[in-house]
Amino acid sequence: MKKLGWGLVGGGEGSQIGFAHRAGSKLDGKFQFIAGAMDVDPHKAFEFGIAQGLDEERCYSDWQEMLEKEKNREDRVQLVTVATPNATHHQISKAFMEAGFHVFCEKPMTMTVEEAKDLLEISKKTGQICAVNYGYTGYPMVRQMRSMVANGDLGAIRVVVAEFAGGFMADAKDDENPRVRWRFDPTQAGMAAVTVDCGIHALHMACFVTGQKVTSVSSDFGHGIKSRQLEDDNLSAFRMNQGTIGRLWTSGLAIGRTHGLTLQVFGEVGGIRWTQEQPNQMFWTPLNQPTQILERGGNYLSEAAQRANRITVGHPEGMVMAFASLYRDLGEVIIAMNEGNRPDEMACWYPNVEDGYHSIEIVQAMVESAKGGSAWVDV
Amino acid sequence: MKKLGWGLVGGGEGSQIGFAHRAGSKLDGKFQFIAGAMDVDPHKAFEFGIAQGLDEERCYSDWQEMLEKEKNREDRVQLVTVATPNATHHQISKAFMEAGFHVFCEKPMTMTVEEAKDLLEISKKTGQICAVNYGYTGYPMVRQMRSMVANGDLGAIRVVVAEFAGGFMADAKDDENPRVRWRFDPTQAGMAAVTVDCGIHALHMACFVTGQKVTSVSSDFGHGIKSRQLEDDNLSAFRMNQGTIGRLWTSGLAIGRTHGLTLQVFGEVGGIRWTQEQPNQMFWTPLNQPTQILERGGNYLSEAAQRANRITVGHPEGMVMAFASLYRDLGEVIIAMNEGNRPDEMACWYPNVEDGYHSIEIVQAMVESAKGGSAWVDV
Amino acid sequence: MKKLGWGLVGGGEGSQIGFAHRAGSKLDGKFQFIAGAMDVDPHKAFEFGIAQGLDEERCYSDWQEMLEKEKNREDRVQLVTVATPNATHHQISKAFMEAGFHVFCEKPMTMTVEEAKDLLEISKKTGQICAVNYGYTGYPMVRQMRSMVANGDLGAIRVVVAEFAGGFMADAKDDENPRVRWRFDPTQAGMAAVTVDCGIHALHMACFVTGQKVTSVSSDFGHGIKSRQLEDDNLSAFRMNQGTIGRLWTSGLAIGRTHGLTLQVFGEVGGIRWTQEQPNQMFWTPLNQPTQILERGGNYLSEAAQRANRITVGHPEGMVMAFASLYRDLGEVIIAMNEGNRPDEMACWYPNVEDGYHSIEIVQAMVESAKGGSAWVDV
Amino acid sequence: MKKLGWGLVGGGEGSQIGFAHRAGSKLDGKFQFIAGAMDVDPHKAFEFGIAQGLDEERCYSDWQEMLEKEKNREDRVQLVTVATPNATHHQISKAFMEAGFHVFCEKPMTMTVEEAKDLLEISKKTGQICAVNYGYTGYPMVRQMRSMVANGDLGAIRVVVAEFAGGFMADAKDDENPRVRWRFDPTQAGMAAVTVDCGIHALHMACFVTGQKVTSVSSDFGHGIKSRQLEDDNLSAFRMNQGTIGRLWTSGLAIGRTHGLTLQVFGEVGGIRWTQEQPNQMFWTPLNQPTQILERGGNYLSEAAQRANRITVGHPEGMVMAFASLYRDLGEVIIAMNEGNRPDEMACWYPNVEDGYHSIEIVQAMVESAKGGSAWVDV
Repeated sequence: MKKLGWGLVGGGEGSQIGFAHRAGSKLDGKFQFIAGAMDVDPHKAFEFGIAQGLDEERCYSDWQEMLEKEKNREDRVQLVTVATPNATHHQISKAFMEAGFHVFCEKPMTMTVEEAKDLLEISKKTGQICAVNYGYTGYPMVRQMRSMVANGDLGAIRVVVAEFAGGFMADAKDDENPRVRWRFDPTQAGMAAVTVDCGIHALHMACFVTGQKVTSVSSDFGHGIKSRQLEDDNLSAFRMNQGTIGRLWTSGLAIGRTHGLTLQVFGEVGGIRWTQEQPNQMFWTPLNQPTQILERGGNYLSEAAQRANRITVGHPEGMVMAFASLYRDLGEVIIAMNEGNRPDEMACWYPNVEDGYHSIEIVQAMVESAKGGSAWVDV
Repeated sequence: MKKLGWGLVGGGEGSQIGFAHRAGSKLDGKFQFIAGAMDVDPHKAFEFGIAQGLDEERCYSDWQEMLEKEKNREDRVQLVTVATPNATHHQISKAFMEAGFHVFCEKPMTMTVEEAKDLLEISKKTGQICAVNYGYTGYPMVRQMRSMVANGDLGAIRVVVAEFAGGFMADAKDDENPRVRWRFDPTQAGMAAVTVDCGIHALHMACFVTGQKVTSVSSDFGHGIKSRQLEDDNLSAFRMNQGTIGRLWTSGLAIGRTHGLTLQVFGEVGGIRWTQEQPNQMFWTPLNQPTQILERGGNYLSEAAQRANRITVGHPEGMVMAFASLYRDLGEVIIAMNEGNRPDEMACWYPNVEDGYHSIEIVQAMVESAKGGSAWVDV
Repeated sequence: MKKLGWGLVGGGEGSQIGFAHRAGSKLDGKFQFIAGAMDVDPHKAFEFGIAQGLDEERCYSDWQEMLEKEKNREDRVQLVTVATPNATHHQISKAFMEAGFHVFCEKPMTMTVEEAKDLLEISKKTGQICAVNYGYTGYPMVRQMRSMVANGDLGAIRVVVAEFAGGFMADAKDDENPRVRWRFDPTQAGMAAVTVDCGIHALHMACFVTGQKVTSVSSDFGHGIKSRQLEDDNLSAFRMNQGTIGRLWTSGLAIGRTHGLTLQVFGEVGGIRWTQEQPNQMFWTPLNQPTQILERGGNYLSEAAQRANRITVGHPEGMVMAFASLYRDLGEVIIAMNEGNRPDEMACWYPNVEDGYHSIEIVQAMVESAKGGSAWVDV
Repeated sequence: MKKLGWGLVGGGEGSQIGFAHRAGSKLDGKFQFIAGAMDVDPHKAFEFGIAQGLDEERCYSDWQEMLEKEKNREDRVQLVTVATPNATHHQISKAFMEAGFHVFCEKPMTMTVEEAKDLLEISKKTGQICAVNYGYTGYPMVRQMRSMVANGDLGAIRVVVAEFAGGFMADAKDDENPRVRWRFDPTQAGMAAVTVDCGIHALHMACFVTGQKVTSVSSDFGHGIKSRQLEDDNLSAFRMNQGTIGRLWTSGLAIGRTHGLTLQVFGEVGGIRWTQEQPNQMFWTPLNQPTQILERGGNYLSEAAQRANRITVGHPEGMVMAFASLYRDLGEVIIAMNEGNRPDEMACWYPNVEDGYHSIEIVQAMVESAKGGSAWVDV
């Protein structure tokens, strides 16, 4: 089986997310890493590309060069991952899609709703994929949650509670460091800080698991560190299109919550909860019965959870494997497209450009609500 | 040492809260149970009083009789606990205070702010105590949290997150039962349902631990079971008088959260969290350091936590002991008052009439905000 | 309902176990504390008795006086709890039984097998109860375990794993304190240290839950602190009379295990586990199915667990309530005996003199095995 | 940087361990998978090799062919992983070492002590590495444990408690399946079952973390399923060369313990514990102080733990990354050897041929002790 060529823009030396993409993309053997423009410094980009095993001619100085040269190759990359600073996502993703490449863009997909809409339209027009890296959706137990909701195990969903709150932004001294400070500077970070950095994952997960969209929001943005221009804490109520009541709390001030991404879903006849720090378990409580601890790898899990699984029950999987699940999905879909086939429905669970667009819409509505004294704003 | 006479109104056979008061009041030997009017059925009240070891003449048919007869006795009860339906709290507490009895009232103290203010004024005028049973504040580790905040261990408090969300109101079939249904009927339950039943505990705990008051709120009330007239889910943002950002989630729909009372407090240089289902531990994370598991009974705890402790570390204490702590506080304070002494400052940590009043104020503001599209309302 | 008179020998001021007995005995209202000889110092015994609300004439100077005076009273105590140093248990329990009192003896019941056999025979001869305080068996979830095993939910029991290992004896400096050092002095502590202090609880629990007896043992006694003459760590293999394989680990050296009493039982078609530090939950795994978290107070529990329950699910119960369960059992049994009735079978689950005897037999066999190079010794 | 060539014997389609080796070996980019003999069926071996991206000429029919052809290549594999049935480990590892290849052998390294000694000698003689896959030692938090012990944080180690007990062998019906049954057949499985399958990991971990060797053992082997000829449960006491008291429990009958590998180490002034199912945390309790939860990725960890780390704190790593750590170690060491350099001391923490030999020695002593009525046997 010939592997699909894969390229990476950004995510060079010292980048956590770059490592996770490289490790995740190769895990299941669908992709081969063949091209990169991983650093703004052309020399470093070259050195790091070589160190990662790229051919010299495919260690590019910048994404423009990569685009120009790759598009003329027969063995061009089939998927380009964009892991550059947020403000550049739109431009780069757009350019690659228009040149006929599929794109896998880091979150947030764009800085503004307009940009997001633009990518959505380009994706539709060109037929190129623009996936968004809500990587936590690749965990088998997150897929189990989605299956159970879709299957009606919980009945109609009454309430979803999404949290992504940790102590990442709690050390005031960090703000003296420009590599942190930019997050709270609207000219660099855009309309929001912790909401775009963390909360957006939890919001997407609420949509992913319930299969619903957010229709309206009421938000309170807090500034625990008062000097910050953008929020470091956000509590939002929301409503979803099938009537589900939503609650979001995202914060960078929550010292002691190491990561802090958690989802709870409560339906008419059951409740589920999951937390990223213990990703191999999911808690399921049927109404008036004991809570059950579902284990990744258990043979009682849904087809979608089994499909995302790799190793035996009891042996923990971690974040890189969740990323890998998205690459496996994308690989399957691209192969099906290349061969003119219809991809497996479950391979299409990767977060797509509509998801990316919807998230930015929600964030914009939250910003507006927070500015308007928490008045409700339609999405 | 002569024990203080204690009497109970309501809380008769089959009442959980009645059991907890009787068990808690006698645990530390400060009070002796000597009078009761525990059932609306005079016959049952008599039978149950006898079964609990009361003298026949002090098994009263109703609270009015109890008040009349007790006030003429030399050995009158010194503290009357009011564990009747919420709508009667004001009238009974008022009557006993005006007759010279100290009162320990179940929560919510009253149905309205006006009633609460009335009790506050009567307490001030008569000098009688009107304590409110936010019983969870009696847990040693809750007192440890308050000590640590007061001591500055966390620095200035940025965010407090209070939750009381369980599956208590999740079974739609229960609403066919009048003993459940009244909670959602405004003519019987007053202005709110889960907020008054559960959220009020979490709110008080946020105030208790931070030493602050709530100054404004923005609330979203949800009706997960649509037929209900009052809310079964409430998400509220709030602000406190020293600038702390507040978050409250209370729900009766959260299937799988067995109890669901949790408090998290995040300051400039540390965070703490505690949950009622595991009350003997508290988690403390100094900024940039590992989380520590503090154990009730540990010799490194604050004086206030040590004071509320009874048994050796590793042997769990439970809810009845938390209730007992409030009785011990009240016993100390009443003895000091009787002897003309100033009570120990830490004995005065019991939730008092101002706390009861403040809670009702907050609930009213939440109701108003929820009706007003989540607009902010001052408390 | 007339309460049963209760008396306490030992367990005076500052004694944890004395507090737990007093609190536990009064919790359910079956007993009234009316007599005591709680301190070896007659003056302190008197003062402390008064402080606990005893009549002056029933604050005795020593157990001999208590026995003499109580046996001549019409309103004599019906149950005497013996909470004195271990070496005195036999003599005191024997004397009270022979004088017609029921006895509730702290563990270990005696220092030697001979003494234990003696109490067993006296109990049979006199018809007086000699219960032993394996207090943890009073927890509702421990009773749930026993019910499930008896009900065959796990199938035949293959393996039982009992642990009681904490850091209680880990601080070498404590050995300079005579109040600690005696435990490791054979002339004062008898044949064993941590085995008698802690392990004996875990051993009894293994018997209690499986309904079996230990038939043979192979033991390794360790001396983590080398200066100690008696063991501070014991690993034992054992066999039970229905073929179950047994494993025991008890240690006082296990720093970080706050309490450390845990039971795991594995049968043909399911496994259960419980730990005293989280006593309100029990984990139950049917073969090839997800683990379930059973909650004290859940309506799906066995009759025996429901019977031992007091408060609503989600509100923790602790150790004092477990002790109280044994008092409730004893109260029921004594009342039935007094009235010539057959007591409820489940009230007879309290640990009795045969249990006390069996435990000492096992310990003796362990001592012998440890001395004999871990060779197997029949019990 | 040129990658090291890597080859795999066994571990073909459907093999969990094969997947884990392939995924782990490529994670850090030190090795490239270039040769394999992954199935006993030559056709399947070819097909699967191709599917994994091997060149046709390096998809070998059996290990003998692989050895013959690889040894004549200039670009020969530098490390051969042996993931075949246990009984073949010795022969294959020996042959590859003698032909000048480094070997990474699955556990147990051999079936007998004699075979193990043979590999030890061959490794010494040839200078070829024979590593053994005690893969769990690659977890960063296991390395943290070893660092803390070596650093004296716990003082002298008094007790080590190693467990590997799960429900893997609990379903009696599985024994009808030849793929399971062989484990309990001495002619196929050798001298022991669960001890060699699971317990051997826990034993090595006890040695790895304490830096000690086992000097004597007393073992009890149980047969929970009576038809089995080899043990499915083993409780062993042991002693280590610096006087540490050891306890091992390994079982395949422990329904509800999903994986069940746990290590606890107790020293004079502190205790630590870790469990494989939650591998990113480690619990550390200094004497008389609160327990701390150390997090993988925390900046307070030891150099060795930092070195084994890849992704940010809070993002779980799992088993494949632990395997990858051993490949990274081996890669570093092989490169250093190739270049004539001394490898980093911490890269030499991978389990080596002496560890493999020592484990088999211990197992043999356990077998002998169990047969001899648990009498102590020197290792």
